[in-house]
Amino acid sequence: MFSRLSPAAFRLLRSARVAHLATADHKGRPHVVPICFAVDGRELFTPLDEKPKKSPPLRLKRARNIILNPKVAVLVDHYEENWRRLTYILIHGRAMLAMRGKKHRKAVRLLRKKYSQYRSMRLEERPVIIVRYISAHSWAAKDA
Amino acid sequence: MFSRLSPAAFRLLRSARVAHLATADHKGRPHVVPICFAVDGRELFTPLDEKPKKSPPLRLKRARNIILNPKVAVLVDHYEENWRRLTYILIHGRAMLAMRGKKHRKAVRLLRKKYSQYRSMRLEERPVIIVRYISAHSWAAKDA
Repeated sequence: MFSRLSPAAFRLLRSARVAHLATADHKGRPHVVPICFAVDGRELFTPLDEKPKKSPPLRLKRARNIILNPKVAVLVDHYEENWRRLTYILIHGRAMLAMRGKKHRKAVRLLRKKYSQYRSMRLEERPVIIVRYISAHSWAAKDA
Repeated sequence: MFSRLSPAAFRLLRSARVAHLATADHKGRPHVVPICFAVDGRELFTPLDEKPKKSPPLRLKRARNIILNPKVAVLVDHYEENWRRLTYILIHGRAMLAMRGKKHRKAVRLLRKKYSQYRSMRLEERPVIIVRYISAHSWAAKDA
């Protein structure tokens, strides 16, 4: 459960506007992209949205990797020049793609609540990546 | 060569204060961490520095993954709420660890030039990850 994180880490996870999703293909070649996302309990949702992409959603490298290999990592981090204030949260999970259904509707609702930008995008018609929590840990320079 | 990127993307790559390094272990489980880095020609350098870590440098997951599997991805991205201004650069490369020698000295010099914070850290004594360029591509919402 994400709520097992410290209160400060959980707040950062919920409020962060961007995270980084790492996937790997069947040959172990890693890939990483910035994502918009929302969390709920033990799941994290990120849409294959309408930000301009050359490929159809399911041809995107992240989607193809997840189909081949559902293991993913998601990082939320905070950078500033005072390195005593660096912090990050690293999540490992198993990812799946949802095209419709109850979880897809929940994802759309949570994403639109968090990002006003999504309220005018047709997320209903787009696949969502659902990352199911396996582990989460947080790191903060000041505590380490 | 990183200089094959568009001038705007190359500027972003050189000036970005933080990037994200994705690695994968021998089972294809991805991992991602924020990194400080410097670039030069066809190589990117990031130290296993003195920011507090619980493990000795070579026990860090990123280092263990690279020893098992040198394929890595590095992402530099820019986020803002106006999604027309989103942009990122994704690099694929092969990583190795350097403990000393000419490339290690070059890495230390470039990292100290870019980050004043490193001028008072004993980078000479720390391993550096060297990522050799395989490919780089940039994406910008406004062009896509």
